[in-house]
Amino acid sequence: MKYVRFRDPAGAVRRGEYENGTVRFGTERYALEDDDIDVLPPSEPSKVVCIGKNYAEHAAEFDSEVPDRPMLFLKPPNALAAHGDTVSLPAGKDRIDYEAELGVVIGEQCRHVSEDAAMEVVDGFTCVNDLSNRDDQRQEQNWIRGKAFDGAAPMGPVLATPDEVPADASVRTRVNGETKQDGSREQLIFSVPELIAEITTYLTLEPGDVIATGTPEGVGPLSDGDEIEIEIEGVGTLEHAVRIP
Amino acid sequence: MKYVRFRDPAGAVRRGEYENGTVRFGTERYALEDDDIDVLPPSEPSKVVCIGKNYAEHAAEFDSEVPDRPMLFLKPPNALAAHGDTVSLPAGKDRIDYEAELGVVIGEQCRHVSEDAAMEVVDGFTCVNDLSNRDDQRQEQNWIRGKAFDGAAPMGPVLATPDEVPADASVRTRVNGETKQDGSREQLIFSVPELIAEITTYLTLEPGDVIATGTPEGVGPLSDGDEIEIEIEGVGTLEHAVRIP
Repeated sequence: MKYVRFRDPAGAVRRGEYENGTVRFGTERYALEDDDIDVLPPSEPSKVVCIGKNYAEHAAEFDSEVPDRPMLFLKPPNALAAHGDTVSLPAGKDRIDYEAELGVVIGEQCRHVSEDAAMEVVDGFTCVNDLSNRDDQRQEQNWIRGKAFDGAAPMGPVLATPDEVPADASVRTRVNGETKQDGSREQLIFSVPELIAEITTYLTLEPGDVIATGTPEGVGPLSDGDEIEIEIEGVGTLEHAVRIP
Repeated sequence: MKYVRFRDPAGAVRRGEYENGTVRFGTERYALEDDDIDVLPPSEPSKVVCIGKNYAEHAAEFDSEVPDRPMLFLKPPNALAAHGDTVSLPAGKDRIDYEAELGVVIGEQCRHVSEDAAMEVVDGFTCVNDLSNRDDQRQEQNWIRGKAFDGAAPMGPVLATPDEVPADASVRTRVNGETKQDGSREQLIFSVPELIAEITTYLTLEPGDVIATGTPEGVGPLSDGDEIEIEIEGVGTLEHAVRIP
């Protein structure tokens, strides 16, 4: 099953079934790109728990070693952006990058989840762009200006149940139509169950919380007006633009 | 004015006026320590934005230089704990510290706030304990296991309007009755208006969000069963215990 959250023409927030570009809720049916609906992020996370350096070849891009346990960081709710949005990036920076990531949407409140039970707390997968302001990220101990700015986590539009997404699903970025990243879920250093087990050793995950599982190699800078597509096989394609004020 | 958020005996969440150990809402009146009410954190933050090394003598405790701009990190909503709670700390760690901090509760959604206008977005001040798991903090780029674990941000019980809190308000910690920290708000390297201006350059603050302004010198480790008091002049005293499982 695939779902899209949206605000309908009457202003009501709905989670509709998604199929072939069409969203259905009750007797209503809309095209995903219909101007009469607002596509929303697939959930309302209290936090996005992000994973750094979870693909060996991406770690190498930054001359980093592969970590011996998941590298965690956070994006708060102000970082959310949706399919179709134009994200206004922090002003006056030299380099702000795209980072395509498989997002895991949590379905139930949980703590101390074992790897074996981890997929039971997963509602589904979505597309995330982990927008990264390198100017500040390089200077900060904690990546707040670098990674937690407003709009730094575009996500959606589709939430796909785990059965829809192959173990080797491709994770791709296109910028203005040109392919920039082309990785695969099977390259993840720490798997989704390993991430859930490690995170919930310390933190309670809430329904709607999202884990952004890290980006494959090929990250690069964005320019004013760029149009970005994050495509995950079995899920769909997140499209958004950026503006540099 | 001073306020305390609480759940009344019927289960309703109220914000009552606080005076001399008594909370009043409408015609109802309760002692703060009344077992019939549950004292809650003073707001429901979407995020707690914390400041590191904002007192010169505390930075020196960690052989750190005073930063040239505020050092930011985040605690998500799972980190909240309330007056009277017993926080269950992460297991198997050598050192988890108390850190008394002046908390700033935001009153309205805001972005790009100037220093001059910053106090207009402040609802009031509260007491925060920035509990810190040093074992993991020392190993992490971003302080998630170290600072964002469940219960890592006890806060409250009182929200005091800014006029109640002197510019040189004392910020103190007692552990089992013994004074451990005794600083003053006037020692802050970056003032509350400077912090609000810097944070909102990058992030939208939401009503109820909390800024934890950093801790004075004298941090130290906690043991199973310790009872902690965080006292801020003009605000009140946050009391909670810790348990090490």
